[in-house]
Amino acid sequence: MTGDDQERLNWGRWGPDDQRGTANLLTPERVLSALRRPRSGRVYQLGMELRRGAPVGGDRIAPMHFMTHDGGDFAALGRDDWGTADDYLMTATQGTTHVDGLAHVWSGGKLYNGYPFTEVRSSGAAKLGLEHLGGLVAAVHLLDFTHLCGPAAPEITGDRVDAVFAERGTAPEAGDAILFRTGWVEAALAHGEPDPDQFPVVALSMGQWFADHDIAIVGADNIAVEAIGRRGVLPPLHKILVRDLGVTMLELLHLAEPAADAVPGGLLVVAPLRISRGVGSPANPLLVA
Amino acid sequence: MTGDDQERLNWGRWGPDDQRGTANLLTPERVLSALRRPRSGRVYQLGMELRRGAPVGGDRIAPMHFMTHDGGDFAALGRDDWGTADDYLMTATQGTTHVDGLAHVWSGGKLYNGYPFTEVRSSGAAKLGLEHLGGLVAAVHLLDFTHLCGPAAPEITGDRVDAVFAERGTAPEAGDAILFRTGWVEAALAHGEPDPDQFPVVALSMGQWFADHDIAIVGADNIAVEAIGRRGVLPPLHKILVRDLGVTMLELLHLAEPAADAVPGGLLVVAPLRISRGVGSPANPLLVA
Amino acid sequence: MTGDDQERLNWGRWGPDDQRGTANLLTPERVLSALRRPRSGRVYQLGMELRRGAPVGGDRIAPMHFMTHDGGDFAALGRDDWGTADDYLMTATQGTTHVDGLAHVWSGGKLYNGYPFTEVRSSGAAKLGLEHLGGLVAAVHLLDFTHLCGPAAPEITGDRVDAVFAERGTAPEAGDAILFRTGWVEAALAHGEPDPDQFPVVALSMGQWFADHDIAIVGADNIAVEAIGRRGVLPPLHKILVRDLGVTMLELLHLAEPAADAVPGGLLVVAPLRISRGVGSPANPLLVA
Amino acid sequence: MTGDDQERLNWGRWGPDDQRGTANLLTPERVLSALRRPRSGRVYQLGMELRRGAPVGGDRIAPMHFMTHDGGDFAALGRDDWGTADDYLMTATQGTTHVDGLAHVWSGGKLYNGYPFTEVRSSGAAKLGLEHLGGLVAAVHLLDFTHLCGPAAPEITGDRVDAVFAERGTAPEAGDAILFRTGWVEAALAHGEPDPDQFPVVALSMGQWFADHDIAIVGADNIAVEAIGRRGVLPPLHKILVRDLGVTMLELLHLAEPAADAVPGGLLVVAPLRISRGVGSPANPLLVA
Repeated sequence: MTGDDQERLNWGRWGPDDQRGTANLLTPERVLSALRRPRSGRVYQLGMELRRGAPVGGDRIAPMHFMTHDGGDFAALGRDDWGTADDYLMTATQGTTHVDGLAHVWSGGKLYNGYPFTEVRSSGAAKLGLEHLGGLVAAVHLLDFTHLCGPAAPEITGDRVDAVFAERGTAPEAGDAILFRTGWVEAALAHGEPDPDQFPVVALSMGQWFADHDIAIVGADNIAVEAIGRRGVLPPLHKILVRDLGVTMLELLHLAEPAADAVPGGLLVVAPLRISRGVGSPANPLLVA
Repeated sequence: MTGDDQERLNWGRWGPDDQRGTANLLTPERVLSALRRPRSGRVYQLGMELRRGAPVGGDRIAPMHFMTHDGGDFAALGRDDWGTADDYLMTATQGTTHVDGLAHVWSGGKLYNGYPFTEVRSSGAAKLGLEHLGGLVAAVHLLDFTHLCGPAAPEITGDRVDAVFAERGTAPEAGDAILFRTGWVEAALAHGEPDPDQFPVVALSMGQWFADHDIAIVGADNIAVEAIGRRGVLPPLHKILVRDLGVTMLELLHLAEPAADAVPGGLLVVAPLRISRGVGSPANPLLVA
Repeated sequence: MTGDDQERLNWGRWGPDDQRGTANLLTPERVLSALRRPRSGRVYQLGMELRRGAPVGGDRIAPMHFMTHDGGDFAALGRDDWGTADDYLMTATQGTTHVDGLAHVWSGGKLYNGYPFTEVRSSGAAKLGLEHLGGLVAAVHLLDFTHLCGPAAPEITGDRVDAVFAERGTAPEAGDAILFRTGWVEAALAHGEPDPDQFPVVALSMGQWFADHDIAIVGADNIAVEAIGRRGVLPPLHKILVRDLGVTMLELLHLAEPAADAVPGGLLVVAPLRISRGVGSPANPLLVA
Repeated sequence: MTGDDQERLNWGRWGPDDQRGTANLLTPERVLSALRRPRSGRVYQLGMELRRGAPVGGDRIAPMHFMTHDGGDFAALGRDDWGTADDYLMTATQGTTHVDGLAHVWSGGKLYNGYPFTEVRSSGAAKLGLEHLGGLVAAVHLLDFTHLCGPAAPEITGDRVDAVFAERGTAPEAGDAILFRTGWVEAALAHGEPDPDQFPVVALSMGQWFADHDIAIVGADNIAVEAIGRRGVLPPLHKILVRDLGVTMLELLHLAEPAADAVPGGLLVVAPLRISRGVGSPANPLLVA
């Protein structure tokens, strides 16, 4: 799957003009089916708080928050009766829990579906922008691999994933979402950004697994799902997921709460901001158990 | 309901420390019930595109989008093989489709649940910030009043709303969401911000109606749900909904698509960004029909 | 001067690695000479206020100003004794009175001094960035052409400029700065952005004139010194001044105050922010009469 | 000078409506005199580069720079002939070399000249905003105290300062500027923000000295001129300089270059951006030797 002649591609699968990739798998039938998954009705937020000091991948800045009017202004004016407050947000779209749009990576000069990479310029992504992705409603599996944490943590491979499904007596279906808990974000929130070698990451070989199972959404509670690459190398699992398959990726998820309740999955709802020509969006994905 | 002695308040209803207001009505039972509403499985995005030129309330700026690296950079370097793109977003939280947080307005010196307005300062809302609101999953009714558009458009009153429910043979239940289509956003998108007098708004008297029906979420496809107030006057329906009742408001919704399909309602999912101490959040609410 | 074979270029004049252009003309000797020009000692600010509603060229946004703490916050906390305030600025570098850096325009694939245009990427200008320009101290001539305002205002040509110098009994010297008052900014401040045809602009033919006189700095109280070009055409005087000659341009100057005092010139001091890899900088040029 | 009954104030000295403080000392006569100071004509920039990684005081963010179009975009489009580039700047006004405006600090409920601190709200400083300060042209003394660097570096006191002037055979005059080199910024640029105890700071007792000599501008190559205060305490020298005396302060200056040339002083020109209602401004002060 690494050579161009072995690529398994979803290009053209939803037409030559498709800009949504595996979001197309989320058909009305699958949406209705996903809505029937929850048993408890409990809603978990998988987004982190947007604030200074929260983990941020790469050299991005943490979200900045500015008030343009507030209670203090009214106090200063001696207007103790009524008032309103307003605020602004400035953030790297990938500087907190976020959706990777399909224009985020390219290889061989091509974005997903064969669009030339030159469609992504300072004016944003003329193709595959986030205004096209749509709201995502899917059945979701939450896989917890925090038991792998430790010195030289091993990767999360297909064998390990298959073992979890076998133990649960379930299997992933086409159009499902899979979220991986590695413990990284929780450690980063507790102690600052930790040694990545102490935490498992999703193996490159899982690219084939995701393709074989026709997974629509892949997410994790770390910066890049896969190992953080060296500078100057395209993250290879991103190449397979985003560019070859058109899979929506979710990163910097906060999975501690559903994990504490041993939630195996349920319904996932992701509503990326419709950022015109955007390549990423901050998001607060919801898991309904 | 306008005099202080006649106020109907939800203060203390969910405890003295509550910071979520009517979001508390979205119990697991109601969530499970709401998930059973959809019939078609079609997912509608109710968020507008974030872009220059889209309608923006008040003197806020429209969302700004910056690329920090893109395909052009790689083209300039002659690296035609692979690359990645990244972007930043700067926006008034209420400068596109958004959630009004509970710290957005106050009256009588008090925010919802009796917190002093001085909790909202330049550092944000120390009480009622958006990090507390949670993901919102509710049954929703979409009411279309665009037939009222025209010179000196009448207000949307309880009688008119009751008539729609009677015609549908349904009734709103506690914890439901109600969204009003007035046509304003669609006109603004088509022609620039139009004369507000040509479009219906939700009447102040509806405050009592929302309280009587214990509605959790109220939204509309205009700037303020109610009439845009004069400067120097607290929007009175905001006072009732946000401050008295703790209702989550949704504004600048884009309702053209479900309206075109004559969707009467279904499932609403809103996932505000968890902006620490935020008073508003851009959002892309999803309606599943 | 428009054909490539007729170009008069300053490329290489200050070495193959030069990144300052005509700023090199501001030698210590000329600096000392310029410091002797003032007679009155009155200091004029030529920068506009940075605020919403001030004129902004093109589709840039006006400067935005955010307070991160202020007196209101202390009032809200009941701390009436002492405190501090802090603020942030967000601005298009060319969204107010500004310096055009030498990386701002290119032609024939080349920036000033022959650097390839591909040096200017999302990471900024790897060549000719504003960190290289330096502080500018020059003798300055202020030329007032507001008498040309009116329907179909004529251009400011070399004949007209020569006539002014002849009348004054002076002549421009190598390394001087020349600033043109056209009335545009004052009209824009008073009434919103006006019809550009009512105001004179500097003629393209002045490019040769500036080159012949070895002018170091050219500025005006309008958006582009020259006529605002159509989309899809490089502003031709910018091509000559910035790219061919390496001249520093100043735009959106506010010249009403020295003009009201009939100031013919004196000392000009411009201190661009040392924005690393920047292509423009907001500035408040000072004229000492 | 620390008790309220011993305060030496410039309040009212330039009228009850004054918003410029000691900038009023920079009379045309003193400007003309200052212009005669330079001997070499060499222009030094005292502003640092605005870039990620440069020293920033407090919890401010470093300047951010965004390109909105650049050479890469034209390369991507195959337009190899001509083009233009544009950029945006987002910065804490005090997040690089900057001017402290007179609305930056208050004590006893009062800003400089007796204005109530409640004039400084989220909308900015309604009094003492930077649009009022004006361009600053002054004679300047550069005092180098880097020989005091080391463990438990001593403070810079009046005795030490007097000794320097005595050695030089000069004396400061009313309306002069004094800049202190402590070595802090250079160490921070070289090695990241260093232990402040290793660097001298200006002693609190210098407040009286500055008042006695009627100094107009005080600056240093560190975060606060004085010792960085503990949280919850007003920096006491700021209280004297900014609030009592109306002195313009310059911070995070880059003084290595004039120091390397043993420049004792000369002409200082500071051109703060005219940020409407601003409390600080990034600046690139120029020293002409």
